[in-house]
This record gives sequence, C-alpha cells and structure tokens, in this order.
Amino acid sequence: MPGSGKTEFAKMLKEKGFQVISMGDALRKRYEKEARHGEKLMDFAKRIREIYGEGVVARLSIEEVPPSAKLVAFEGVRSLYEVEEFKRLGEPIIVAIHSPPQLRYSRMMSRMRQDDSKDIQELRRRDLDEIKLGIGGVIAMADYVVLNDSSIEEFKRRSEEIIQRILR
Amino acid sequence: MPGSGKTEFAKMLKEKGFQVISMGDALRKRYEKEARHGEKLMDFAKRIREIYGEGVVARLSIEEVPPSAKLVAFEGVRSLYEVEEFKRLGEPIIVAIHSPPQLRYSRMMSRMRQDDSKDIQELRRRDLDEIKLGIGGVIAMADYVVLNDSSIEEFKRRSEEIIQRILR
Repeated sequence: MPGSGKTEFAKMLKEKGFQVISMGDALRKRYEKEARHGEKLMDFAKRIREIYGEGVVARLSIEEVPPSAKLVAFEGVRSLYEVEEFKRLGEPIIVAIHSPPQLRYSRMMSRMRQDDSKDIQELRRRDLDEIKLGIGGVIAMADYVVLNDSSIEEFKRRSEEIIQRILR
Repeated sequence: MPGSGKTEFAKMLKEKGFQVISMGDALRKRYEKEARHGEKLMDFAKRIREIYGEGVVARLSIEEVPPSAKLVAFEGVRSLYEVEEFKRLGEPIIVAIHSPPQLRYSRMMSRMRQDDSKDIQELRRRDLDEIKLGIGGVIAMADYVVLNDSSIEEFKRRSEEIIQRILR
C-alpha cells in the first residue's frame, strides 16, 4: 500500500544482492512509449489491463529481469493475477509490508508537505483504488508480513530478519 | 483468513471484558430460520448479500450486541462494506491476524486429520472465496496486525500487547 515502506524494504534487498524490479518503472517505461496524448498513468494502466489482462504489468516487469539475475524481487505487486505470472520464473515468495493507514497517511503528508483533511480523503481514495485492483488478496496470501508500525530502526531490524529467513 | 488464529484472539478479548460477537454465529442463526431446503450456508450468505447488500452480516451481528455492552468486538469481518456498517456504533478499530498460507493449511489439516494435496486445493479455493468477498481490503486497512507465524506463546504475547494498546 502507498506509504507502507516497501521501497525501503526493496533497498535492503538490493544491498543483499537481489535484482529489484520496480513494477511501477516497468509500467512507466511502456507508458512513455505508448500512452495516448494527455492520458494519465493510472488510466493507461487500466487500459492495458483491459486489453492484455490483469497480469500485464507483471509480464512487462519480467521482461526487465537481466538474464544473469539469480535473486529477483518485484516491487509493487497489485494482485494475485500478477503473482500467477511470476510463477513462470519459479515459486514466488510474497512479502507484504504493513503500516496502519493513519501512519501511512501522516508519512505521505509530510513527504508532500500537506496537511489538510481534503488530502486524507484523496489518500483514502487512492487506497481504495489499490484495493480494487486486488492488493488485499496479495497481503492476505503473503508468506511474510513485515510490520512497519514503529521506528525506522525497528522496521529495518524486522526486514533484516525476514530477508535472512528467505535466504536460508 | 481461515486458520489464522482469530478465534484464539477473540478468546483473549473475552477474557479482557470484551463482548465478542461471532459474525459466523449471527449468520448461522438467520440461516437456521430462513434457509431454503438443502441450501448451504455459503449459498445462503451469498443470497442474502445479493438481496440486502454486502453489509448485511454486519447488520445482523450488530443486532446481537447486548445493550449493556461497553467493549464490543466482531469476529469474522469479511469486507470493508461490513466495516462501514460498524461505523454506526463508533469508529471501529480493525485488527487482522495474519499467518502464512502454508502454516494455516497445515493447522487446518491437522485439525481435520487430513493430509492429502486434494485438501490443500480445497483450502486454497476457500481462501480465494474469502478474498473475493473482500477480506484482503480489510487486512490492508487494518489498524493492527498480529502475526501468528511462530509459537502459540509468542502469538499470545503479541496479542496481549495489541489488546493493551487498544485499551490504552
């Protein structure tokens, strides 16, 4: 979910030698080439999902994996349809990063330097968009959940522990 | 999700003085009165959701709250539509209990004394049914997540900590 801390977790995976593929970047790359004039990224994403199926962004992301990669992580999975696509590469391990909504909102607010309640409504709407895509199903079926509900140090400690369990 | 440990958590809430309403029991009560001949519980649930809306089981559960209750917990929330219904009573706090699927499956298998892979398929299908109802969205928006991925003692310790934070 937005503001949960998944990018921080991805950074730690990179340090451990994972090839991290940002699914958002894979989508944007295609968007820059093929979007209609004035089309927003999210509308483009919706359109290509309608044309090519719910798993399309996962397939575009798989294209980004360098042939030499041994440990691969995909950041920004949105649905179990995408998880299905990753099964082509092997049995995927799902890691969900969870933060309470109020904490995610206040993090995103300070990142955007905004603080009025109209923005909270906007962030909540964005959450519901993600949920509509099916992100909740991915969290429900996660093999690991890292709770990011206290300090950054504690989050890093928990992340480190999970990464060690995955690498074992 | 099935086999996550939510009933154990509910038991602890009861010990702390919460009035715990089982949404499954509220549904079953109505089922016993009104089901069609031979209708399965899940088909009945689906039918009443179609007639009365996605939040109907929450509304039936609210009916079960004794007027004297001060601390109320609803066990078995399936969708954000149900969470919306609970807002009639005050601002709800969502607690999700998460266990990795493999662990939930092996717990349920030993509970059922079954162990072949056909049953794993059945449990997975049941998971996907829950996800279709929207349980993932509830987990994604949870205020607290209790991880039940190691021992029962550790789960109880974590649950105790969360309950203390809620009561504070």
